[in-house]
Amino acid sequence: MQKKLLHGQWRMVESDIAEDILAGRIAPQTQLPKETELMEKFGVGRHTVRRAISQLETRGLVRVEQGRGTFVQSRIDYRLSERTRFSQNLLDQGRETLGQPIHEEVIEAPTKIAEALRLPIGEPVYHIVRREFVDDKPISHSHSYFPVRRFPGFNDARRSGRSITSILADYGVPDYIRLRTDIVARLPTAEEARHLMQDPSLPVVALKKVDVDLKGMPVAYSESVWPGERVQFSIDNTSQLLDALARRSES
Amino acid sequence: MQKKLLHGQWRMVESDIAEDILAGRIAPQTQLPKETELMEKFGVGRHTVRRAISQLETRGLVRVEQGRGTFVQSRIDYRLSERTRFSQNLLDQGRETLGQPIHEEVIEAPTKIAEALRLPIGEPVYHIVRREFVDDKPISHSHSYFPVRRFPGFNDARRSGRSITSILADYGVPDYIRLRTDIVARLPTAEEARHLMQDPSLPVVALKKVDVDLKGMPVAYSESVWPGERVQFSIDNTSQLLDALARRSES
Repeated sequence: MQKKLLHGQWRMVESDIAEDILAGRIAPQTQLPKETELMEKFGVGRHTVRRAISQLETRGLVRVEQGRGTFVQSRIDYRLSERTRFSQNLLDQGRETLGQPIHEEVIEAPTKIAEALRLPIGEPVYHIVRREFVDDKPISHSHSYFPVRRFPGFNDARRSGRSITSILADYGVPDYIRLRTDIVARLPTAEEARHLMQDPSLPVVALKKVDVDLKGMPVAYSESVWPGERVQFSIDNTSQLLDALARRSES
Repeated sequence: MQKKLLHGQWRMVESDIAEDILAGRIAPQTQLPKETELMEKFGVGRHTVRRAISQLETRGLVRVEQGRGTFVQSRIDYRLSERTRFSQNLLDQGRETLGQPIHEEVIEAPTKIAEALRLPIGEPVYHIVRREFVDDKPISHSHSYFPVRRFPGFNDARRSGRSITSILADYGVPDYIRLRTDIVARLPTAEEARHLMQDPSLPVVALKKVDVDLKGMPVAYSESVWPGERVQFSIDNTSQLLDALARRSES
């Protein structure tokens, strides 16, 4: 038993600190105790503490600022509203995002994609695979689908780095709405874990979403995975509350 | 190697079928192949197949109907709208729910709860712990908090099995709105896994939510965990689309 404990010491330190962070017992932006304090607290050597901290940094739970110390990293808050726009959402939190195009092709829509986009089965659709980074770590890996006939050349515009909002505007879609989002927590496939550069034994959030134009016609369908530890999804119904208030005062 | 495979054979069969179900390769409500077919497909004995199926049933991924066969269980779809009401939500899907009161007490609101309910720190709040079941399996374990001064005796009414909606109506709160929901995917603590009767290496969804009355004053705050494999959360913005349409046609 003693031997096993020694062998996995840095893992114990890591998981002990990780639990405190994930349970909210150490608040975001808090500075972790210094190396020497952690060595004393856990009764371990400097190497063990460093390895644990390095692992926490890989998991995105802390960030090491050279010369200043180690700080608890807050989860990225991703708002799921009817007007969710990826980059804006994160810019609002002062986080810079970077998109990485991975793959694109035109495919004949299989049943699931055709249904989501309300197209005939076999209709051509762009299949675009991308990865988004926040703070230099992958935050999502996505497969998106767009109808080719309605948006010819969409893939070229997207590859050039333009936002979906701006591209759709060019095609006469000035606005669109997130009609439906499905959210599931599960373990990643080996491939997804690689894409997200995360431990395959840690959960991901899998999202499916449909965007529609203001006539209700689907313009995009996508499936994405997000690292469970680094992101929090939130729904804010303040506008619905205000609507309910307005209706009350009218009646 | 061979030995190891033999030892974990049922686990391999289990995880192979589970992956097909979770990836959507076997649709909900589909009947699984018969025992003899699975034995042939995987090259294993009846005992191994039975053990794998039994484990899938425990995970809530299939249901065994005596004399009829084994069917893929669909995920419970839990809608996160501003008017989410637990029982109604599940009744709409033809699923019966059962609530189990576990614990209740009056506590002095710690900072986090006080902030969520917009009360002074230390103000008395009911702390109510419950578990909800769907199809005889735990679907959520929750800690809810309600202000004592505003809703004296709330705990008694809740313990008697009445819905929150009906109890709040008695206190002059005819309607309330889910103001904010935070969603996170993570591994459960050992205790949470026990509460949800699930494997501790499988993820849970952790929700935090605040309900407010139509003046925007919080009436309830709760934190809950849900088994990741058995539930899907969905957001439907159809009403926001209709609002956007209406505004367009006005202008």
